[in-house]
Amino acid sequence: MTHFDTLIKHGLIITAADRYHADIGIKDGRIVALGQGLEGADEVIDADGLWVMPGGIDAHCHLDQPLGDGAVMADDFHTGTRSAACGGTTTVIPFAAQQKGQSLRAAVEDYHQRSEGLALIDYAFHMIVTDPTERVLKEELPALIEEGYSSFKIYLTYDDLKLNDRQVLEVLALARREGGMVMVHAENADCIAYLTELLESQGKTAPVYHGEAHSAIAEREATHRAISLAELIDVPLLIVHVSGPEAIEQIRWAQGRGLRVYGETCPQYLMLTAADLDKEGFEGAKCVCSPPPRDKKAQEAVWQALESGVFQVFSSDHAPFRYEDAQGKKLHGEQADFHHIPNGIPGLETRLSILFSEGVLKQRIDATRFVALTATNPAKIYGLYPRKGTIAIGSDADLTLWDSKARVTIRNDELNHAVDYTPYEGIELGGKPVLTLCRGTVVSRDGKPTAPTGHGLFLKCDKPQPAKPRGTAKGF
Amino acid sequence: MTHFDTLIKHGLIITAADRYHADIGIKDGRIVALGQGLEGADEVIDADGLWVMPGGIDAHCHLDQPLGDGAVMADDFHTGTRSAACGGTTTVIPFAAQQKGQSLRAAVEDYHQRSEGLALIDYAFHMIVTDPTERVLKEELPALIEEGYSSFKIYLTYDDLKLNDRQVLEVLALARREGGMVMVHAENADCIAYLTELLESQGKTAPVYHGEAHSAIAEREATHRAISLAELIDVPLLIVHVSGPEAIEQIRWAQGRGLRVYGETCPQYLMLTAADLDKEGFEGAKCVCSPPPRDKKAQEAVWQALESGVFQVFSSDHAPFRYEDAQGKKLHGEQADFHHIPNGIPGLETRLSILFSEGVLKQRIDATRFVALTATNPAKIYGLYPRKGTIAIGSDADLTLWDSKARVTIRNDELNHAVDYTPYEGIELGGKPVLTLCRGTVVSRDGKPTAPTGHGLFLKCDKPQPAKPRGTAKGF
Amino acid sequence: MTHFDTLIKHGLIITAADRYHADIGIKDGRIVALGQGLEGADEVIDADGLWVMPGGIDAHCHLDQPLGDGAVMADDFHTGTRSAACGGTTTVIPFAAQQKGQSLRAAVEDYHQRSEGLALIDYAFHMIVTDPTERVLKEELPALIEEGYSSFKIYLTYDDLKLNDRQVLEVLALARREGGMVMVHAENADCIAYLTELLESQGKTAPVYHGEAHSAIAEREATHRAISLAELIDVPLLIVHVSGPEAIEQIRWAQGRGLRVYGETCPQYLMLTAADLDKEGFEGAKCVCSPPPRDKKAQEAVWQALESGVFQVFSSDHAPFRYEDAQGKKLHGEQADFHHIPNGIPGLETRLSILFSEGVLKQRIDATRFVALTATNPAKIYGLYPRKGTIAIGSDADLTLWDSKARVTIRNDELNHAVDYTPYEGIELGGKPVLTLCRGTVVSRDGKPTAPTGHGLFLKCDKPQPAKPRGTAKGF
Amino acid sequence: MTHFDTLIKHGLIITAADRYHADIGIKDGRIVALGQGLEGADEVIDADGLWVMPGGIDAHCHLDQPLGDGAVMADDFHTGTRSAACGGTTTVIPFAAQQKGQSLRAAVEDYHQRSEGLALIDYAFHMIVTDPTERVLKEELPALIEEGYSSFKIYLTYDDLKLNDRQVLEVLALARREGGMVMVHAENADCIAYLTELLESQGKTAPVYHGEAHSAIAEREATHRAISLAELIDVPLLIVHVSGPEAIEQIRWAQGRGLRVYGETCPQYLMLTAADLDKEGFEGAKCVCSPPPRDKKAQEAVWQALESGVFQVFSSDHAPFRYEDAQGKKLHGEQADFHHIPNGIPGLETRLSILFSEGVLKQRIDATRFVALTATNPAKIYGLYPRKGTIAIGSDADLTLWDSKARVTIRNDELNHAVDYTPYEGIELGGKPVLTLCRGTVVSRDGKPTAPTGHGLFLKCDKPQPAKPRGTAKGF
Repeated sequence: MTHFDTLIKHGLIITAADRYHADIGIKDGRIVALGQGLEGADEVIDADGLWVMPGGIDAHCHLDQPLGDGAVMADDFHTGTRSAACGGTTTVIPFAAQQKGQSLRAAVEDYHQRSEGLALIDYAFHMIVTDPTERVLKEELPALIEEGYSSFKIYLTYDDLKLNDRQVLEVLALARREGGMVMVHAENADCIAYLTELLESQGKTAPVYHGEAHSAIAEREATHRAISLAELIDVPLLIVHVSGPEAIEQIRWAQGRGLRVYGETCPQYLMLTAADLDKEGFEGAKCVCSPPPRDKKAQEAVWQALESGVFQVFSSDHAPFRYEDAQGKKLHGEQADFHHIPNGIPGLETRLSILFSEGVLKQRIDATRFVALTATNPAKIYGLYPRKGTIAIGSDADLTLWDSKARVTIRNDELNHAVDYTPYEGIELGGKPVLTLCRGTVVSRDGKPTAPTGHGLFLKCDKPQPAKPRGTAKGF
Repeated sequence: MTHFDTLIKHGLIITAADRYHADIGIKDGRIVALGQGLEGADEVIDADGLWVMPGGIDAHCHLDQPLGDGAVMADDFHTGTRSAACGGTTTVIPFAAQQKGQSLRAAVEDYHQRSEGLALIDYAFHMIVTDPTERVLKEELPALIEEGYSSFKIYLTYDDLKLNDRQVLEVLALARREGGMVMVHAENADCIAYLTELLESQGKTAPVYHGEAHSAIAEREATHRAISLAELIDVPLLIVHVSGPEAIEQIRWAQGRGLRVYGETCPQYLMLTAADLDKEGFEGAKCVCSPPPRDKKAQEAVWQALESGVFQVFSSDHAPFRYEDAQGKKLHGEQADFHHIPNGIPGLETRLSILFSEGVLKQRIDATRFVALTATNPAKIYGLYPRKGTIAIGSDADLTLWDSKARVTIRNDELNHAVDYTPYEGIELGGKPVLTLCRGTVVSRDGKPTAPTGHGLFLKCDKPQPAKPRGTAKGF
Repeated sequence: MTHFDTLIKHGLIITAADRYHADIGIKDGRIVALGQGLEGADEVIDADGLWVMPGGIDAHCHLDQPLGDGAVMADDFHTGTRSAACGGTTTVIPFAAQQKGQSLRAAVEDYHQRSEGLALIDYAFHMIVTDPTERVLKEELPALIEEGYSSFKIYLTYDDLKLNDRQVLEVLALARREGGMVMVHAENADCIAYLTELLESQGKTAPVYHGEAHSAIAEREATHRAISLAELIDVPLLIVHVSGPEAIEQIRWAQGRGLRVYGETCPQYLMLTAADLDKEGFEGAKCVCSPPPRDKKAQEAVWQALESGVFQVFSSDHAPFRYEDAQGKKLHGEQADFHHIPNGIPGLETRLSILFSEGVLKQRIDATRFVALTATNPAKIYGLYPRKGTIAIGSDADLTLWDSKARVTIRNDELNHAVDYTPYEGIELGGKPVLTLCRGTVVSRDGKPTAPTGHGLFLKCDKPQPAKPRGTAKGF
Repeated sequence: MTHFDTLIKHGLIITAADRYHADIGIKDGRIVALGQGLEGADEVIDADGLWVMPGGIDAHCHLDQPLGDGAVMADDFHTGTRSAACGGTTTVIPFAAQQKGQSLRAAVEDYHQRSEGLALIDYAFHMIVTDPTERVLKEELPALIEEGYSSFKIYLTYDDLKLNDRQVLEVLALARREGGMVMVHAENADCIAYLTELLESQGKTAPVYHGEAHSAIAEREATHRAISLAELIDVPLLIVHVSGPEAIEQIRWAQGRGLRVYGETCPQYLMLTAADLDKEGFEGAKCVCSPPPRDKKAQEAVWQALESGVFQVFSSDHAPFRYEDAQGKKLHGEQADFHHIPNGIPGLETRLSILFSEGVLKQRIDATRFVALTATNPAKIYGLYPRKGTIAIGSDADLTLWDSKARVTIRNDELNHAVDYTPYEGIELGGKPVLTLCRGTVVSRDGKPTAPTGHGLFLKCDKPQPAKPRGTAKGF
C-alpha cells in the first residue's frame, strides 16, 4: 500500500463537475489517491471545513514582457508568480511577445531567459504573433507548436502589435493546419485612433477619455470581424478580455450558430466602471486598460454571460505598471494624454478571490463553474489538461484550500506583487485561499509565499482539443 | 488499509469534467477509493481498454403507468429496469401519475405498490400533477417534496392531463415556495385538437398525420408560454423532450436572458423523422410519440443544441406499447385514426448507445458532455447528486464499462424490454456497454441482466439546487 | 371645366408618401382635382402656411359600448365624434361588442341604433367577438363581412370577453376563409388574475398595483401566442395597443420571419408611465388602462418601434369614463381595489396632436409616417381605402389643416369629449389642427365643432387586402 | 384654366402610398394637375387599362466609367440611358469615380464631359471616393456637396478602390458634417484575396469559383463593420447590392436597434444563383459580379427582406461588359482566372420588368412598394425628391405606363443596351412598360427609344433628408 508524501484530509473537494468529501493522497507531486480514511503520509494537512479546489490557472497575464516605449513591467517571473501563488494560482501563462521584425523563436528563447529559475509556480508560454512572415508561418510556428508552445495571441489594435485581416487569416489557417489555439484582442485600431485624435483635438486628454476612445462599438466590430475570419477558416477562436454586452452579443450569436468561439473575461469588468477612470487628478490612470471598464449595466451583462456559459475562461490580464513610477503609469508624467499611459491593471493575486466572493458566495455561479472558469477550462483549451486544472488521479497536486467563511479586505500592502497599488484597495471579500500547493509543495500559506524561488517549472502545452474542422468552410 | 468488495482496474474514468486512468475501489456499494495501483478486493474487474462512466440516469421514462383508455404499458418495473440496466442505465425516474380527482399521495402510494420488489436498478419517482387542488398544493405536495418526491411534471396538452395557465402558475409558485423542480410537456392542446379535427375532416387519419397535427408551432408556443409563466413566478423550469429548432430558439432566448430554463431532448429527435411515421400500412404507428420526430433539419438543430449547451438532459421518454397488441399500438385496430394510437416509443435500453455512437464517437460532443447529459446533470437537477450521477468518493458505485471499439447492430430480439419492436431496428452503432454495476453489483453483462429482481432500491430525491429567486419577479 | 364646391389653396399637402404644394378641388364631398392655380369654387379656403393632411382615422376607440358591470361610457357617438373631429379626426371605428350568449348580428344592430343620427364624422364598426358559436362562425360572420363589417377584435383577457385558444383558432380560420381582419388584445388572463389575487392578498389594492398585475410578461406571452396561432392558420393579425419592448420584440421577430403581423400603439404608451398610476389618493385611477403605461425605457422602445416600422397603426384606444362619477372610475368608490376600476383613458381628441408634436416636430418620425400611421394604414388595413385615409383624386375630402407653428397647452376644459379629465392636462404641444373637413364639410375649426349632429355617415368596410395565404400552413 | 401640353387620361395612378384613377395634366414638363375629366391639351394619351407609375430611378449603375485595367464599359450615356428609358426608367445615377491620386473634382468634370449631350433621360452623379485626402475632405467634397453632388460610394474591397477603416471614418464624419449620403460596397477585401489565392493554388480558376472567393461571410463581415463605423460617427449609411441572408441579418439587426441603415438589392440576387456561374465553358463569366449571386435560399431571403422592409432601394448595378470582347468579359481570354474577369452584369432595361413581374404580379410586394423601391425612396435618399420619384403636383412628369397583362420574353436582341448578352435571356415576364415620359416627353414606346439623344438633363441633388445626428455618438 502506498505511503504518501502528503495527505490532505477531510476537505470538501470541488472539481468542474463534482463536490464531495475525500482525502487526497499525493506522491511525487501528483495526486495518486482519492478516498475516505486514507492514511500513511509524511505530512498530513487537515482540510476539515475547507474547500479544496484545483489551483488556479491564470491564462492571461503579462510578466516582464519587453516593451518598446520605455515602460517597464513591475512584475517579473519572481514577483509575479509569488503574487499569483498567494492568490491561489498554481500555473500562469504569460506571453512571449514577438516584436515586428523579430524571429518568433528568438522571442520565445528570450522569454525563457527572463523566466529561468525565477518562478514559484509552474508556467507555460503563449506567444504573441505580431509579424507573421512566411518564415514564421511555415517554419517557426509549426515547430514551436510541436515543441509545446501551442497557443498564440494576435491583436487587432495597437500599432506595434496589430495584424491586418489578411495576416489574421494566415495565422488562423496555420492554427487550423497545425492545431494551435488562437486568442484575439478584439478592438478596432482605426476607430480608437480616430476617437483619440478627435478627443485630443478637443482637449479631452484626461484618463477618463481613455474609456471614450475605446468605444464598445470598436470592441464589438473587431469581435464580429475576428469571429467571421475564424468562421471562414473554420477554426476555433478565443476572444480575450471581453468587457460588455456588445461583444458578448456577438460571441453568443456565434456560439448559437455552432461556431467554436470561446470567450474570456476578467475581474476588472466585474468590479470597475468608467467612474474609476474619472478619479481626481491622475488617479484614473491606475485603471487604464483595454478594453476599458464600462458601466454598471455592462458589469451585469458580464455576470450574466458568466452564469449562462458564454465565457469559458476567467483570467486576470495582469499587466503590472507602478503608479508612482516614471517607467510605469507616469511614463509621460501626470499630465500625460490618456493614450500615452501604459495600459494595464494588476490582478494576479486578487483574481480568484474576487470571483469566489462575488460569484460563488453571492450565488451567481456555483463552485463547479468557478473551478471550470479558473482552472479546468483554461487547462483544456490550452493543452495542459489533464496534468493541470483538475483534481484527479494522475494530475499534478496543484491545489488550493479555501476558507469560505473568512472575510478579507484587499490592501495593496498585503499583496505580493511589485505594483504599488491595486484597483481594488479596500474592497471586502468573502472567502480566501489559505493554503496553496503546486505539485504537492506548499507554495503559499495565508497570503504569504512559502516555497523557494525557482520551484516553478516550465510546462509544454499539448495541442488543444483537436481543432477538428467542421466542414463548413468552402474552398478547402 | 481498506479491503474492497470490488476493484475496477485500469479503466479510463470519465466524469462530467474529467478523463483519467485510475482504479476504483468499491465497498458497501459505494466508491471509497480512486487511485493508481489499488489492491485488495474480493472481486477484481479488469477494465483495461474500457471507458468507465457513471451509470446512466434515465430521468424521463414511463413504466407500468396506469392509463385511462384501455392501453397497457408493456414494461413494468421488472422488464423496464432490466432493459435499462442492459443499456448501461443504473437509475430510472418514472412517473407517479395523479389522475384527475385522485389524491397525489394515493398516486405515489399506488406507484410504490407497482414497483415494490421488481426493480433491477435504483429508481426515484417524478410525480405528474394533473389536478392541483388546494389540498394538493397546500398539503400533499409540500409534504411529498419533503419526503423525497421533489420533481413533478405538468402537461400543457392531453385532455386528461393538461393544466390551464392558472394551474400552472399555482404549481410553479408551489415549486418556488417549497423548492420543487417542475418539468413541462410543452405543446398547445388546442392547436393539436384543431389540426387533428381538420385533418380528420379531410380523411387524413394515417399515422403520418400525427406529425402534422403536432405542429412545431404548437410546441414553440407552449414552450414560450411555459417559460413566461416560470419567469413571472421566478422559478426554474425544465422543458422536456424538445423536438426541433422552434422550441430550441425559445429556450436559448430564455437562457440568454438569464432565466433558469433547462432543456431535455431524446434519441428519437436525433434518429427519426416524419418519414418514419409514413411507413407502409400501420407501421408508422411504431413511431407515434409527442412531440413527433420532425425532419433532417430539425435533427441538425437538436444536435447543435446538444453541442452548444442548450440542453442539459438527455432522456429516453420510454413509453412502451407493443405493436401487435390490442392493448398497445393497435388498441383501436390497424385502421385507427392517428390520434387514437397510444403515444410513445421504447428507448430505455438504446438511449446511451445512440448518444455514445452518434454523439461521442462522431465527435459531435465529447465524452464529458455525454456523462453530463446522461447522468450528472439529471442527478443534480433532480436532487440525486452526489449519491448518483458521478464517479466520486462517497457516491454509489453505479458504473458502466464501455467498449468504445465494439460495433453493434440494434435488434429487438436482443433487447430486454417487453416491447415487440424498436424504432431503431437494424441500425449499426459504435461502442457498447459491456458491464454495468449498480451500487457495486453487476446488474448486466454484455446486454444481459445479471442481478436478481428486486436489487433496485427506491431513492428519495433531495430538493434540487436551491431554487433561489433572482428577485426579478414583481409582486412578491 | 369643373366648378368646385370648395377649393383649398396654397397648402402643403402631405400623404403617406408625398409632400408638395398644391390646391385641392372638392366637389360633392370628394377630391376631384389637385393642381396649381385651381380656380372657381363656391368656397375658397386659404391654407397658405398650413399643412394639409388626410383627416385622421381613429381605428381603435370605444363609444357608448354597453358594459355589463354598471359602468357607463361617458362618450356616445355625439360627444365622441365631436371630440374626434375637433382633434383632426374624420373617421372613427368603434366596436360593436357581442356579449356572451348574444347574436353578433344583434350586437351590430344595437350599435346602429346607438349611433344613428348622432355622429359628426364618418364611422365604421369593428365587431368584438366574444362568443364564436357555430352560428356566428358559419352564418353571421360570413354574412356580416360581406355586408361591410370586415374586422373583429378578440380578447385573450377579461373574463367576459376572452376566448380560449381553440376559439381563437376558429375565428382566425374564419378570417382566412372569408377575408376578415382580426385584431387581438394580447394579455394573458390567468397571469393577471394570479397577480391580482396575490397583490390583493398582500393588501396592495391601490391603482398603482394595476400596473404590477398587468405584467409585461403577460403581454409578451399573449402576443407570442396570438402570433403563433395566426401563423398556424396562416392569416394576418394585428396586435393592438402594444405597451413596451417585450411585446415589440415578439412582433418584430414575427415580421422578420415574414409573417403578416401588424402592430398598433397609442399615445398613453408614449406619454404616461407607471408613475401616473401612483398619484396621490385615487388619482391614479385616471390612468388605469390595459395594458398599463410602463416606464421611460418602455416609452423609448415604443418610439423606436414607431420609427423603425414595427407599428403600422397609431390609435387612441379611447375608453371614456368620468372620474368623479359613480358610473365611471369611482364605480366602486374611491377605495376600490384596482381591478374594480373601469379600464380606459380618453384620447380621441389629443391623439393626433400628441404624435404630431412629439413625433413629427421632434423629428422622431417624418410627416409622411405620421399620415401613414394615423390615416392611410388604418384605411388600408380595415378596408376603407381609397375612399378614406389619403389625399388623392376620388377620395373623400377628409382633410385636416395643421398649423405646425402653433403651441397649445392641453386643458380638459377646452376638449369636447364628455369625460371630466384628460391624462395629459397641462402638457404643452407644438402644432394644432385648425380646420377639419369631412367629405368637404368643415366639421371643426380651432378646436370647436362646426357641423351638425348627424353629418357623419356609416361606412361599409371592404375586405382588407386579400389575406392571401402564403402556403406556409400545414394541414390545409 | 390651364391648357396642358399633354394629358394622360384614365390611367390607374400608383405612387408609393396610393392607387387611384385620375387624369394627369402636364405642362412645361411638370405635373400641374391631377383630376377627373381633365381636358384641353396638345396631346392626349389614353392610359385606359394601364398603370401609371413614376418613371424608375436607377440609383446604382455604371456608364462609361473609366477603368484602369484595359476593360471598357460597353454602355456610354447614350446607349445606357436609351436602354434605361426603354425599360421604364427616367433617371439614372451613375458614378463619377475618383482614381487614386486624382482630384475628385477632376473626376466629376471628366464625367460631365463623358455625359454631355448624350443622355436620353435625366441623370445625376454619385461620386466614388477612393482617395480621401485632406484636400478632398476639407475642400472638394464640401464644395461638391453644395453644388449638387451629395452622395458618394466607398468600397471596402477592390485594390484600386478600397478605403481602410480610418478613411471610412473620415468620409463618414465628412458626410455627417456636410450632409452627404454614403453608400458602401461591403465585402472584406482580405478575405476575398485570401480565398482567391487559395482557390488558384488548387487550380480552381473557372468562373464558378468567383462565387466561392466572394464568400457570404466576407460580405457579412464588411456589412457589420460598415454599420459599426457609421454607428460610431452617428450618420446614415446605405449598404448597396446586398446578396443574401448573412448581410440582411446584420442590416435588420441595425435597423431594429434604431440605426439609420438603409439597404439596396438588385435583380441578380432574385433571379440568378451560383449555378449561373457554373455554365459550360466560359459562359459563367456573363454572371460574374460582386457580390455574386448565391443560392435559392439566398433568393428567398432577399425576397423576404424586400417584403418586410429591410431594403429601401432596388437598383440594377448595371455594369456593362460585352461577352465576346477583348475589352469585355474576355479581356484576359476564355481561360482567364475568375478574378481577372471584369465584374458586372447588364440590367438597366430589365430591372423594373423583373421586379414588376416577379414581385408585384406574383403578389410578393404590392405596387406601392414597387414604386417606393424603384423610384420614390431613391429620390428621397439621394436628394432628388420631390422633383423626381413620384406623381405629384409640381414634380417632373416622369411617368411610365405599364400594361400589367402583357407577357414578354426577354431577348437580348430586343434590348437597347450595347452589351451582347443578358443574363435573363429567355425568361418570360408578366407586364411591360409601354410608354415612358421624361419631363413630359415620350422617351420610349413599346421598348424602343423615341426621344432624341441629349434630351436628358443633368440633375443637381439636394442634401438628402437632414442627416440629423441622434446624439448616440460619444466624443462629439
